[in-house]
Order: sequence, then C-alpha cells, then structure tokens
Amino acid sequence: MTHAIDRIRPLDAAAQEHVHALYRHLHAHPELSMQEHATADFIAAELDALGVENFRCGGTGVVGILRNGEGPVVAFRADTDGLPIAEDTGLDYASTATGTLADGTEVPVMHGCGHDTHVAALLAAARMLDASRDGWAGTIVLLFQPGEETAAGARAMVDDGLWDRAPRPEAVLGQHVMPLRAGTIAISSGTAMAMADALRVTVRGKQSHGSQPQHAIDPIVLASSIVTRLQTIVSRELDPMDPAVVTVGTFHAGLKENIIPDRAEFTLNIRTLTPPVREQVLAAVERIVKAEAAAAAAPEPTIEKLYDFPENYNDPAAAARVTTALEHAIGAENVNATGPLMGSEDFGHLGSAIGVPTVYWMFGGFDRDEDVPMNHSPFFGPVPEPTLTTAARAAVAGVLAWVGSDDEEATA
Amino acid sequence: MTHAIDRIRPLDAAAQEHVHALYRHLHAHPELSMQEHATADFIAAELDALGVENFRCGGTGVVGILRNGEGPVVAFRADTDGLPIAEDTGLDYASTATGTLADGTEVPVMHGCGHDTHVAALLAAARMLDASRDGWAGTIVLLFQPGEETAAGARAMVDDGLWDRAPRPEAVLGQHVMPLRAGTIAISSGTAMAMADALRVTVRGKQSHGSQPQHAIDPIVLASSIVTRLQTIVSRELDPMDPAVVTVGTFHAGLKENIIPDRAEFTLNIRTLTPPVREQVLAAVERIVKAEAAAAAAPEPTIEKLYDFPENYNDPAAAARVTTALEHAIGAENVNATGPLMGSEDFGHLGSAIGVPTVYWMFGGFDRDEDVPMNHSPFFGPVPEPTLTTAARAAVAGVLAWVGSDDEEATA
Amino acid sequence: MTHAIDRIRPLDAAAQEHVHALYRHLHAHPELSMQEHATADFIAAELDALGVENFRCGGTGVVGILRNGEGPVVAFRADTDGLPIAEDTGLDYASTATGTLADGTEVPVMHGCGHDTHVAALLAAARMLDASRDGWAGTIVLLFQPGEETAAGARAMVDDGLWDRAPRPEAVLGQHVMPLRAGTIAISSGTAMAMADALRVTVRGKQSHGSQPQHAIDPIVLASSIVTRLQTIVSRELDPMDPAVVTVGTFHAGLKENIIPDRAEFTLNIRTLTPPVREQVLAAVERIVKAEAAAAAAPEPTIEKLYDFPENYNDPAAAARVTTALEHAIGAENVNATGPLMGSEDFGHLGSAIGVPTVYWMFGGFDRDEDVPMNHSPFFGPVPEPTLTTAARAAVAGVLAWVGSDDEEATA
Amino acid sequence: MTHAIDRIRPLDAAAQEHVHALYRHLHAHPELSMQEHATADFIAAELDALGVENFRCGGTGVVGILRNGEGPVVAFRADTDGLPIAEDTGLDYASTATGTLADGTEVPVMHGCGHDTHVAALLAAARMLDASRDGWAGTIVLLFQPGEETAAGARAMVDDGLWDRAPRPEAVLGQHVMPLRAGTIAISSGTAMAMADALRVTVRGKQSHGSQPQHAIDPIVLASSIVTRLQTIVSRELDPMDPAVVTVGTFHAGLKENIIPDRAEFTLNIRTLTPPVREQVLAAVERIVKAEAAAAAAPEPTIEKLYDFPENYNDPAAAARVTTALEHAIGAENVNATGPLMGSEDFGHLGSAIGVPTVYWMFGGFDRDEDVPMNHSPFFGPVPEPTLTTAARAAVAGVLAWVGSDDEEATA
Repeated sequence: MTHAIDRIRPLDAAAQEHVHALYRHLHAHPELSMQEHATADFIAAELDALGVENFRCGGTGVVGILRNGEGPVVAFRADTDGLPIAEDTGLDYASTATGTLADGTEVPVMHGCGHDTHVAALLAAARMLDASRDGWAGTIVLLFQPGEETAAGARAMVDDGLWDRAPRPEAVLGQHVMPLRAGTIAISSGTAMAMADALRVTVRGKQSHGSQPQHAIDPIVLASSIVTRLQTIVSRELDPMDPAVVTVGTFHAGLKENIIPDRAEFTLNIRTLTPPVREQVLAAVERIVKAEAAAAAAPEPTIEKLYDFPENYNDPAAAARVTTALEHAIGAENVNATGPLMGSEDFGHLGSAIGVPTVYWMFGGFDRDEDVPMNHSPFFGPVPEPTLTTAARAAVAGVLAWVGSDDEEATA
Repeated sequence: MTHAIDRIRPLDAAAQEHVHALYRHLHAHPELSMQEHATADFIAAELDALGVENFRCGGTGVVGILRNGEGPVVAFRADTDGLPIAEDTGLDYASTATGTLADGTEVPVMHGCGHDTHVAALLAAARMLDASRDGWAGTIVLLFQPGEETAAGARAMVDDGLWDRAPRPEAVLGQHVMPLRAGTIAISSGTAMAMADALRVTVRGKQSHGSQPQHAIDPIVLASSIVTRLQTIVSRELDPMDPAVVTVGTFHAGLKENIIPDRAEFTLNIRTLTPPVREQVLAAVERIVKAEAAAAAAPEPTIEKLYDFPENYNDPAAAARVTTALEHAIGAENVNATGPLMGSEDFGHLGSAIGVPTVYWMFGGFDRDEDVPMNHSPFFGPVPEPTLTTAARAAVAGVLAWVGSDDEEATA
Repeated sequence: MTHAIDRIRPLDAAAQEHVHALYRHLHAHPELSMQEHATADFIAAELDALGVENFRCGGTGVVGILRNGEGPVVAFRADTDGLPIAEDTGLDYASTATGTLADGTEVPVMHGCGHDTHVAALLAAARMLDASRDGWAGTIVLLFQPGEETAAGARAMVDDGLWDRAPRPEAVLGQHVMPLRAGTIAISSGTAMAMADALRVTVRGKQSHGSQPQHAIDPIVLASSIVTRLQTIVSRELDPMDPAVVTVGTFHAGLKENIIPDRAEFTLNIRTLTPPVREQVLAAVERIVKAEAAAAAAPEPTIEKLYDFPENYNDPAAAARVTTALEHAIGAENVNATGPLMGSEDFGHLGSAIGVPTVYWMFGGFDRDEDVPMNHSPFFGPVPEPTLTTAARAAVAGVLAWVGSDDEEATA
Repeated sequence: MTHAIDRIRPLDAAAQEHVHALYRHLHAHPELSMQEHATADFIAAELDALGVENFRCGGTGVVGILRNGEGPVVAFRADTDGLPIAEDTGLDYASTATGTLADGTEVPVMHGCGHDTHVAALLAAARMLDASRDGWAGTIVLLFQPGEETAAGARAMVDDGLWDRAPRPEAVLGQHVMPLRAGTIAISSGTAMAMADALRVTVRGKQSHGSQPQHAIDPIVLASSIVTRLQTIVSRELDPMDPAVVTVGTFHAGLKENIIPDRAEFTLNIRTLTPPVREQVLAAVERIVKAEAAAAAAPEPTIEKLYDFPENYNDPAAAARVTTALEHAIGAENVNATGPLMGSEDFGHLGSAIGVPTVYWMFGGFDRDEDVPMNHSPFFGPVPEPTLTTAARAAVAGVLAWVGSDDEEATA
C-alpha cells in the first residue's frame, strides 16, 4: 500500500541547506511578541520565492495559501515570536538581538522556545508540498502566527478576519519543539495543553511609618497571607485527579524598609485542564483574595485579568487520523502517546473560533534524553537535525491526512 | 510621729502558731472553685471564735464584719479557691485532696495559686485588729471570696447582695502572693492586672474521607489559618505600647486520621490592659475568625464567651495612700513600684460594682529571687515566713489607711 | 463461541434467597477490624455447608479452598470487617451492633463500607462454581480477609503463613462495592488505588500560663504553622500530574484556654499513587515538620508511623484478561475503564507478598447515579439486587479467566 | 529666685524675623541625607555672621563652638537632612527641591520630618546665648548633624573626630518637633526612643516555568511563609510588656507572572527598646528565616544589615535636670512626662561614643491636637510660631542646666 506521504519527494541537498540557512537566520534574529516585523518580511519573502500567495494578518502574522486544485482545506500553524531572554547556548548563530518591552526597557531577545524551528519546518514542508503537487489535492493554509507567548497572536489573526480572508479549513494543525529526543513525536488524544489565566491582584492597605503598625493596614502581611492561603486551592479544594497549578509569579510592595506601604501587587498564573476546574480555581482565588482582605480590615482588592490562554484540545478523531499519518511518516516506534501538558498555547483559538477541530503535537529537538534544557532556558538550543527534517515531514504528513490519500492499488 | 500601724500589737507566739496551723490546714485541704464548702466552714469557725459577725454570701463566700465604733468603712478581700493541679511540692502538709470538675471528672486539687496564704493572712490581720481595737475606729469588711480562678466568685458575691448586706466601704483592698522574695511587696498605680476574656470558637467545615478533600471543607486547615492569622492582632494591629496577649490554649478536631472532620474547636484567652484595647482585640478576633471561614467557603463559625475577668485598676490616690501605709509597715525599701501584670483577677468587680476605688498589691512568698516556681505550678509552695507575717501586716496597714490615723503628737 | 462463564449455571431461586439471607445477616452483624469472630464462624459454617475445605488464618481470617482437579490456581479475596459508625440507613436489617475500640470505648458498628456485599458475593460465587464443576478445572482459593480498614488483615494472613498453607495462585483477584449504578463495573489498568500512609506527629513546646507567652514555646501556633505549610507539598512540590493527598485528620492540644500547653498532636493521612511520589511526600512532611519546629525554637517533633496501605496495582496483562471476562459476563456496555482511585486497600499485599499479579475492580451498588451516599457514610446501604448477582457473576468470571476456558468449537 | 533662663534676653523683632526667614529658607531648600551641602554652607554662614567659631565635620556636618570663659561644656544637636517626599503642604515656602538617590533616581525632597525647625531653633538659641553672655559661662558645642534619617550622620561626625576636634561635653542634648500642640514639650526619663535595625533578606529558591512547580523551589511562597511566621516574634516570643515592632517594609520578587523566580528579597525594620529584647528579636528573625528556608528545601537565605539606630536613652539624672529647666522656661504645665517612642534616632551615638549622658525631648509644632499630620507625611508643615520660639527657648534652657545657674540672691 502506498501512503500519502510516500508521494511527497524529500528535499534535495540544496533545498535542505536552504532550510538550514533559513533556520539559522531566524534563530539569530528573534523578535518580541507582536513585534515580529522582520520575521514576517522574511517569511513573506520566502513564500513569494516559492510562489505561494500570501498576506499579512493580525499585524505581524503571515498567511500563505497553497492551492492545488479541488479538495479539502487544512491549515497548519507555526508561531513566530521570541522571548526576552539573553541567549547562552554558545551556538555560532546565537542571537544577539534586542527588543523593547512595553515599558520602554530594551532587553535581549532569544528564540528560547524554539519557534524558529516551527517556522523553518513549515517553510520546508511548504517547499516539499509545492514540489510534489501531484501527491495531493486541495488547499493548505499556512499560518505564521505572531505573539504566541503573550496569548495575543491567535486572537489578533482571527480578529483581523483570518477566516474571512483565507479558506476555512476542516482542521487546524500545529506542532511544538520540546526537550524530547530529535526524531520522535508525542501526541495526545483529548486535552493537549492546559488553559492558562493570568491575573494581577492589587491589595490596598494603609500606609504608616514602620514603627507604627497600629496606624497601618499592612499590605505585605496581607498579601503574604493570601499567597499562603492560595496553596489550599490545589491542596484541599480540587479533586487530586484534576491537575492544576496556581503560581504567584511576582510580588512587589514597598519602597523603603521603614515605611509600611499602602499597597502590594502580585500576579498569578493559573493552569487548569478543563473548563469546570478553571472556573472552580478562578472563583476560589477571588474568594480567598477578598476574604483575606476582609480578615485584615483592608479594602477589597482589585483583581485584573492580564490574559488567558484557551483550551488546546486534540479532537480524538482528528488526532487519531494525524497519529496514523505520523506513524507512517516517521515510524510508529517514534510516535508516542502522551497526556496533557501543563504548558499553554493560544493555538486552539485558531480552530475553536470557527468550530473546527485542532490537533497539536510535540516533536523532539535534542540528541539526548537527559539534562536537556527546558523551553525558555537561555541554554535552549535544538540540534538542527534530525529536528527540522522530522518536523517538516510531520507537518507534511499531518496536512496529507486531509489533502492526501492512501491508496491500496497505487503499489500495483 | 506615730503611724497607725504602730498602735496594732503583733501576734504573740501562740497566736502566730495558730495562724500557721490554720495555713497548713488550708494548704492541705484545697477545694475547687465555687465548691469551697469546707473552706467556708473553716473560715466561719475561725471568725466565730474571734467573735467576728459573719455570713455566707455568693454560695461559698464568707463575709466577716469587724465593727469598732464610728468611723470609715473599708473592705479587704482574700480569695479562697484551689486549682485542679496535682501538688508536687514535697511539703509535709502538701495536698492530697481531690475534686470533681463540671464534667464529672475527679481531679487532684492544690492551692497552686497560694490563695491559702491570702486567707491565713487576712484571718491573722483580723485577729490583730480585733486585739488592738484601741488603735483604730470604723468598720472593716472581711471578704472571703470563692471562685476567683473561674471569674465567678466576685460576681456571685455582688449578685448575692453583698453590698446590701454589708456596709458599703470607701475602698476595697486585696493582695496576692507572687514569686517575689518574701518580706517584699510590689504595688502599681493605675492598672494592676490585665482584663481577661475567654472565648470558644467552633469552626464548621464539611466532613469527607481523608482521600477526598474535594468533597470536604477542611476545618483543621481553616482553624490553623485562623490561629496563624490571629498572631497579626498583637504584631500588627495594636500600638506596640499597648501590651496584649492572644493565646489559643486548646485546639481540638477530628477522631481519625483518615477522615476530614466536620468541625474544629479552639479556645482563646485574651489579655488586655485597657477597655479600648480590649474592644479592639475582641473585634479583630471576630473579624479574622469570620473572614478566614469565608476564605475557606465555610459557614460562619460560632464564637462563645466563656468568661471574662474585669479591670483591676488601682485608683492612683487610693494606691498612694496604701503605698505610704505599707512603707511605714514593712519598710520603704521593701515596697516596690511595679507596672501592670498580664495576669487577671475578678477582684476589681468588688469595687467597680458600687463605684468605689480598689487597691491590689503583690506580696512575696519565697526565700529566693531566682528559679522560683510560678503560680499554678505543681511546685508552688510559698515559705510560711516571713510570707504570712508580712501579708498580715500589709493587710492591717492597708485597712488602717482608712480606719486608722497617723498622729504627730502621739510621740510626745 | 462459548465463553467460560456460559458453563456456570446461575443460582436457582432458593440459592439466591439463601444468599440474600446471608447478606442481610452479615449486614445486621458487623464487627470491628480484627474482631470479626462471629463473621468468621458464619463464613466457615457456610463453607462447611458447601463442603469447601477451609481454615482460619491471621486470627479472624478464613481461607476456603475449592479444588477441582488439575489446573491453574487463582485466589479471590473478600474483606470482612465493619466500621465504628452508627448506621442510619433505615433498612429493616440495619445494624444495631456495637464493638469495643482499642481504648475500651464501646461504639456502634456498621458495614459502612459494604464489605458484607463482598462476602455474600464471594460465597455466592463459590456456590455457583461448586455447582458447575464441569465448567472449570483447577483450584480456587477463597480469601475472607479481616481488618482491611486498619491495613492489618492482609499482612496478618500473609504473616500467618497464608501462602504456605494454601496453594500459591497465579493471580489474586478482588472487588469492592462503590457508589456506582448497580449492574456496572469499573476497572483500571495500572494503579487501582492509592497507597496510604498514616503518621502521628507530636510537637513539643513549652508550657506556660496563657498570659505569659514569653515563657512558652506555643505548640498550637507551631502545629498550625505546620498544617499550613504542609499544603505546599501538594501545591508546590509535586508534579501537578501526580495526584496526591496530604490530610491532617486530627489535631489535639491543650486542656484549658488559659494555659499554653506543652505539646500538640496531629495525625496525617497521605495518599500517593507511585512509590517515588510516596517517598517524596513522606520526606517533605518530615522536612517541614522538623524545620517548622526549628523556626519555633522547639525540640524536634516525634513522627510515628501508624500504618501504611500498600500499592494496589492492576497488572495490565492480568487486568486485560479480567476485563475481557467481565465484558462477556455482564456485557461490555456495563464494564467501564477507570483510572486510579485515591482510596486505599491492603489487598495488594496478598499478591505482592509472593510476587504474583493482582487485579481489583469496583462494582456498583445503587439504583441511581446521583446523590448516592459515599462509602463510610451512615447512609451507605447498597441495594441487594442487581448488586449481589452482578458481583457474584463478576467474581466467577474473574476466576474463570484462569481456571476456565473459552472454547471456539463448543458452540458447534 | 532668679532662674538661669531669666538672664537670657529674648530675640528682638528684627532677630525674630531673621530666624523666621532662616526657617522658611531651610524649609524651601531641603537636601537628602549626607548631601546637605547647601544647608551646611547656609548654617556656617549664619554662624560666621554671629561670629561663632565653626568647622565642618562628617562631610556635611557643621560644628559651632560658642565659648564664654571658664565653665562646663555642653553640646546641643540639630539634625539637618530632608526626605525623599513630594511636599503637599500648600505652604508658600513649600519645597520644590529635588535630589538624587544612591541608584541615580531623581526624587522630590521635603523637610517632612521637621529638621528645619531643629536647625532654625538652634541658630536662634545660639543668637540668644551669644547676645546674653553675661547670663552664662562655659562652652556650648552646636552640632548640626547630617544624615539622621539614614543613621549615618552621628557616626560620620564621631568617626570624623568630632570629640577630638570639639571640647568634650558633660552632656549632649537634642530635640525633635512632633505632632503635639506648639508651645508644649514631652520628655521621658529612661529610654527616649527605640533602637532600630534594618535588614535585607534574600531568599533563594529555584527558578522554573510557572506551570512546573515540581522543578522549582518557590521563593515567593517561602518569603510569604517567613513574613507570616515573623509575626509570632512579637505575638508569642516577647514579654507583652516589652514593646517591639517587626515590620517588613518591602517585598520584591519576580518579573513575569508565568515564571517562578529564583529569589525574593524583603527588608525588615525592627524596633526595640532595650538591648536584650533587641538581641532576642534579631536572633528570632534569623532563626525563623533560616528554618523556613529549610522547610522549603531552599538554600540558606542571606541576611544583610542595612543600618541600625542606637539607643536613645535619657539619663534619668540629666533628664531631671533638663526637665526642671524646661519647666522654668516654658511653664510646668507645658512640660509633659512621656514614655519611650517607637521612632528611632542616631542622636544617642553622639553621647554614648564618649560615655556622656544624653537627653532628648519632643516639642510640639501644631496649633491643634487632632488630625495632625505625622512626621514623614507630605502634609507635615509645623506652624512657625509658637513652635520656633518654644524650641529655641527650650534649647537655651537645656544648655543652661549646665552652663547657667539659678541664683537665690539674684532677685535681692
């Protein structure tokens, strides 16, 4: 039997070197979320060079449309943004780029989450699919999405009319490089990644001189009580079978050791796997924050939402279809089932916004299993091969599960 | 100049031995609060023997009235109850008595707070004053009050018509043995002892199996949070110059390690020196208890008052009068000014109930200054002398500040 | 195709009524853990009546051996003990029994965990298997195990030479009634139930009068800090994907509100699913308990182990074998896959002690899905049917997965 | 009888207006601690104008020496620095000055603690004493001390050879404006103000992504636990009669809500009244910080001392001498006894460094008793009169207690 993937010719040496050059360029020139201007230009130039119709969407997003006659439509997404991290990989193509945060601070920027591999792999996949148009039929929408790290990009593209401007797909696919062995893939059925909610809490106390607590309402003691009490949400309120994380990632209060300040501010990052647990945790956070303020005789604190990452749910039927295709493409022994990850992604929104299934998987990027730097580490430097070839082949196999066909007679 | 005290003849050897025998008997036969039946009989028999008019008041209280013609009225109080402690002093007159608590438990009883010295000293003072009627004029009301340890006795006597049945005094005096050197006295001007409030808090959660916190509201975690948070009342809400204590003395919850129980119960003992601070602390306790329950999504806890000890305030003018008298009686070098103690007493109610000033002082009971057992210790065993002679002389001097007179010509 | 179960004849009406009478008798006469004397006699009498060889083991345990020629050996376990709960089901065969706890307290006893259904179902299964000896070959070891609730019984039987005295099985099977719909079964592959560890912690402070915290080390504040801090083990130290529970089920300290006591005692119930997580949690508990005592300048607390429940792990191959058999026996639509439960069991020890796989499943006991009382509730009253028939049939199907055989030709 | 103060002539109208002009200039031109260059020049120019010998000491400190023949030596100190506060008094001479913090930040500066009144009053006193040299004999050392707010100035002057370069006094006096009624003074015998210790604590955890607490040691949860636990020092470890404050004035950790940071930093301000309590509190802070880190399995935190304010103890004999002089100078009804304040001062070091007694008092600066802004408030604006006249007269009276004399015959 011939599998759809067998009809797609691999890249020749020159094309492969071109992809590697692309990758090294991307790695060396990361840009902060929603500021991926040069990256967008770079991607568009490559699509232009391939003759793939493309347009900007959601600011620094790029949409390429690879049309190949009648047939299903499927979309594949690569995210494009870097992170405010000073790269310390020692690679000769390491980033020395800088960027400017919203508050005006200039910071080093790094592809510390490996989105450069996503872009390079999708461009390589486009090149392969373009070069083997006889092997498939339909339309492939290439989504180069900005601002994944800030949960802004998927919404920005959808809000910018993505699915009015591009053909509506039957499914949206995506993938992410992970600290797994290069050449392998991990895919789940059902929840792929956690939802994330970020909140900012401002507790207000009453300022006084440090020697006069009787005239103060101490916001540091109050916020510390809240942090301590928030631990009970995961430890006592949730079903132990429902994984969840409530992290207080920042806590800032006070300017001088001898002044009890008038406020404290902290931010929360909350991870949950299902909407009911998400609602339960958010309600518990609000309940505890307010009640602890009442215990301190303090005014009701302010709770602001900073952002939220949506569900990233692998539709089981679509996931099964992709899994079969991946097993053919890279060998069943290299495709592992996995459960949900506590990390988050805004990928799901690209499908849920129009009610189509999404499938998302992880591909390895390292030549070893242990002591691998995690994503967001200054040491996160995937090995280019077999990382890129695997990821490109996985992307091709994924889309072919819609626009290709396995053919029993073909071998005849 | 002759001081009033100089007109009172000391006890002779026989009388002194009688007082010591009284003391040893009292020490060996302590009774629990409001159960001082034998003690009351014993005191009344001694008053009868002295020919001092007396009656029962407030159950096991005894009031003696020593009348000596026209003149001011002053009252002196000795408290009579023992404690549920197993004596471990090794004294040959140590207590082997037992008593029955409200719940029916039989317990050992000990004069672990030294009230036996108070009774013996007041009986000795009565004997001296009776024997030197030429040295004073007026009426001395001897108050043998039960139930000091439970804050029940002073109220019981007042509620039983004490001040309708006995002459109303110009002042009420009292004294307490302390771990100070015998032969010395300490007296404050203003607050003498702390007010005390005892509360019982019952927090209600929701029971569940220990493996299913998601179905429970955990009252142990809740009550622990309350205990932790209560610390901030003293540390952060009060003026550091306002001494206060918030003690959680008991905490009981749960029967089995694998069941999250449905409730936890704890009791509080609160000490404050002024009514405004008392109100502030009680309000803060209630606020914190309720808010922490809200933080746990638990029902509002129950807060019950167990008892309260009233102010014990030394009227400065009356205290100055007493201090002068004490300095004459036992030597100025043996009378020390002191500030308020955090211990509590229901003594103050005997005066405040009728709006007359009270004065209360401490006398030493030990032949050393260091490593002295504290009141309520199983090892609390005052040395009889000079403890009793000093206390009796102090009582005489105190009342003489009202019913005696210093006389400049007397030495002529 | 004929399935092994098809060769076992159902109970006739008289036998069924006999089983129900057995069940009602057991329900009405529960006994506390390791005191199941009458229950053991009752079981032995029934086995004797069936002509099944049996002996006592582990005190109040009973082992029946149903021999039927050459063939594999398989064991099936039913646990026999009740709980110190006052039954409130309103059933006409409700328990009015009492028992005596280790401390001498007399308490009501109830089959609040449904072990009576386990015993009745296993006796019914034995009756069926005995009556259809042509349908299977080999040996079935019937384990009526005492003391499951206290984690004592499985160890007691093993320590009493169980596997020297009874034939060694290829697998040990067991089942438990749950608040599921009667007629259904839930079974997991891999971990079936949590390990449980119970600890008693005694923290020592320093006693003082409630008004003198400066002379005390407050064990209630210390233990409350520990309880609060223990929450961080689940919330911050464990992988959110590793379910675990750290419950403080009891907390006792202090006799009187105005004495800071010299110690506090609390007990912990810890649930984990894997040995590494178990070790991590136990180490964290010890670390936190000791460090918090150090923070309080208190002596090192004592941590005593009360008991531990072992792994209850469904060997995947054996579980698959059982699942297939159950699907044939009660319909695939009534057999649900499930994950691990946070409850615990000492069942696993019966197999792990000799290195043979165990398989454990849950059967429903209620005629509805919602508002069902949980095990250990005073209202826990399973409906006899289809509960007992399903459980008996499941037990038969389970053992037949070893001593029976499916036969393709049989239908021919 | 003539009191020494009666021999000093009050300022005439022109001189008084000069002093007010001085005051308004000082108020409008505050400088940050240890940066009081213009202030020092201004003071030196005034002393030069008065013909008072002077020199710089401790950087921006100024020492004036008013010699008047044989006689005792006494010193009087005024502190000179302002605070980084934006003045909001609405006064027409309000400050619009700015200064530069150690980190380079430019900030508004205000005489928010009223040191301008101290300087103006001491210059006025010098003018009066200079103009009435017939009324006293001896030497008065005028200490214009910089950097009180940062506890740097007194040490800087002493370390710069103050008492080698200026005559050694028999006593050092000082005063501070407070939210009391202008025209009144409050003075204590014994401890005048609290010692203060400022510490910076850096707790180190282990960084990880916010969704992966299992790879982190969470320093925010740890520091929050420390803050919570520190409350027990005041609430449970100290004698309730020993006032003390443990304030956490700043708490900073984390840059991003989805990263568990690797450290948290907080600062403490500790107030105690006696050296033993100070040692007890500092030891308890260290013990708790270290133990809580151990509870979190975190490395041992770093505790750095930022500064400490020394004892400010009013030698009782010297304080009695000053009190009598003040009563003569401004009326006994305007001089109130007070206890220690929880505020702190480095004044005491000026005397303790050479073992001479110090006396320090408070003078009022407001025309009302209620709703008065506290020191360090942006609204702190004393009324010039009778504030300055009272303070100048108090300074004169204070030094005269050493260099003046009361004379019974003088009135003859």
